[in-house]
Amino acid sequence: MTSQFGPSYVRAIAPYIAGKPISEVAREFGLNEASIVKLASNENPLGMPESAKRAMTLAIDELGRYPDSNGFELKAALAERYGVPPEWITLGNGSNDILEMAAHAFVEKAQSIVYSQYSFAVYALATQGLGARAIVVPAVEYGHDIDAMLAAIADDTRLVFVANPNNPTGTFIDGPALEAFIAKVPRHVAIVLDEAYTEYLPAGKRYDSIDWVRRYPNLLVSRTFSKAFGLAGLRIGFAIAQPELTDLLNRLRQPFNVNSLAQAAAVAALNDRAFLEESASVNARGYRRLTEAFDKLGLEYVPSYGNFVMVRVGEDDGAGARVNLGLLKQGVIVRPVGNYGLPQWLRVTVGLPAENEAFIAALEQSLASV
Amino acid sequence: MTSQFGPSYVRAIAPYIAGKPISEVAREFGLNEASIVKLASNENPLGMPESAKRAMTLAIDELGRYPDSNGFELKAALAERYGVPPEWITLGNGSNDILEMAAHAFVEKAQSIVYSQYSFAVYALATQGLGARAIVVPAVEYGHDIDAMLAAIADDTRLVFVANPNNPTGTFIDGPALEAFIAKVPRHVAIVLDEAYTEYLPAGKRYDSIDWVRRYPNLLVSRTFSKAFGLAGLRIGFAIAQPELTDLLNRLRQPFNVNSLAQAAAVAALNDRAFLEESASVNARGYRRLTEAFDKLGLEYVPSYGNFVMVRVGEDDGAGARVNLGLLKQGVIVRPVGNYGLPQWLRVTVGLPAENEAFIAALEQSLASV
Repeated sequence: MTSQFGPSYVRAIAPYIAGKPISEVAREFGLNEASIVKLASNENPLGMPESAKRAMTLAIDELGRYPDSNGFELKAALAERYGVPPEWITLGNGSNDILEMAAHAFVEKAQSIVYSQYSFAVYALATQGLGARAIVVPAVEYGHDIDAMLAAIADDTRLVFVANPNNPTGTFIDGPALEAFIAKVPRHVAIVLDEAYTEYLPAGKRYDSIDWVRRYPNLLVSRTFSKAFGLAGLRIGFAIAQPELTDLLNRLRQPFNVNSLAQAAAVAALNDRAFLEESASVNARGYRRLTEAFDKLGLEYVPSYGNFVMVRVGEDDGAGARVNLGLLKQGVIVRPVGNYGLPQWLRVTVGLPAENEAFIAALEQSLASV
Repeated sequence: MTSQFGPSYVRAIAPYIAGKPISEVAREFGLNEASIVKLASNENPLGMPESAKRAMTLAIDELGRYPDSNGFELKAALAERYGVPPEWITLGNGSNDILEMAAHAFVEKAQSIVYSQYSFAVYALATQGLGARAIVVPAVEYGHDIDAMLAAIADDTRLVFVANPNNPTGTFIDGPALEAFIAKVPRHVAIVLDEAYTEYLPAGKRYDSIDWVRRYPNLLVSRTFSKAFGLAGLRIGFAIAQPELTDLLNRLRQPFNVNSLAQAAAVAALNDRAFLEESASVNARGYRRLTEAFDKLGLEYVPSYGNFVMVRVGEDDGAGARVNLGLLKQGVIVRPVGNYGLPQWLRVTVGLPAENEAFIAALEQSLASV
């Protein structure tokens, strides 16, 4: 007899499929690790800033100690940078941790959570992990249909996830439209505005969501150090919200959820404006190069505001997997998005110039060999 | 009008109170950080092993990348060390993460979880965070009453937490008695055996819980690198269980829950037998010194099998807080355990010889000045 452990809603979850690490692709395809180009996980192709490396090195001698559970220094730096009290800030083990904490803190089993089709996979995972009901609102042109999302809020809805820009599609909601949406969401429904890619926005598209946090007590803004700040491997993200929401997150937060090195590195990265500017500029140039190549190849893509772009590599539902395999054999790792219901598409992270060229060459060959 | 966000069971949680970090005590009491002795969080007084520092340094250049979600290298090392397949292993952001994952994976709202009075605070937090019902079994001589725990398992119980040795009391259940208990727990009830301090056990007290995992599909053993292995600041722990339980944990595990440096450092620490032996030996000598001092002062203590010892510093319920304040003023941080319902007691981590002496001197003065 097989016992059945765990709630049925946990047994029903399909685990998140992470991008293949370089070492795994090398093992699987018999390739040399150094020759592999990884454009699969929207990492910063510049790597970690030197300023953060230096800050981290100074903290190494204290690693026998637990981290500061309250993140005093990093919260102080974030508070100064974003103009909010430290008490409005919650640190997470990556922003994934923030998203999970928010779902657990605001929603219980059988209540509902609203999010968009084609939005970040963790929203669905967090919803399923609670046994909550997902209200998935059909996308328009691969992006959030915020009017339909507003209309979809049910009596038992306690949380709305909005990703801006959105991953994996790269779509963007303009600031004024987004604020109008937030103003109309009922006050007892929490909004998690996931801005993992906000540092890549061009100046003309920026908006002040932290000011919205001051005005909307049901708004939580989630940010990460994993993308433009270059600290993906250290795991650190944060939330800004008024004390009522922040206090609930902290009741569920694992006391030592953010390691000491991530805290030290993030303080340095936060204030490394030169690195952020270079990251945005490398990204803008690389994005132009990739999309010009797609135009030349006659491939459709979704205009993106992140550090990645989603491209349609064929008209049949086997296209994404087929072209992806062709890329893998040539040592290029991108992200198939069939699990998002987009089997004709691949998501590619903008890389360094040489990485972008390697991807374009491999893509041309993979398409030609089909 | 104040909205009420979140489930009532989340709003009812009292957040975990972490040990005060050195920097915070220095700020509060106007002390020099370098003069402070911290014996509050059961950290390894030797700090992080040099072998782990070297391994970590080699991984620094890859921190712009996400960690390996599947922890290939560390799981391979753990599998070899403990003689189980890598598929039986789950990595956690500290063992706190394992304990939380287990509660979420095995129990849903309104079902019950059994644990002992005076056992690790995270069991209560994980239970409350689910809206589950806690069945708290009264302790006997500050330790687990396993017969009463067995009898307390209800129809709706899905999980039993057992800490061996137990924190904060240091008590220990002998291997044969513990296995007899595990064998009697109904097969549909998961058992989380939290062995955070197992590396400190003297040879005569060791037992082979990994072999029990092979025989009991409802048993999960939780371990940590934060104590004897000296990696508290990096955050890493792990679980060993058969595939049915492991698979459920992985459905809830945050995909990048363990940072890259923790993974690299843990591989090195795991195989650094000399460091483990030195840690155990420093601990055994320090424990003898502390308990001899308690005997001389006429203070009751609970014989401990961990790297800490709980001592009764007075007969009134203000004693723990009062003596603790006296210690803090002298720059010595230990752990009051009033939140565990033990207001007459303090828990002190075994330190290096000079730290133990500083604590004993400060304790004598704090007791005398009352």
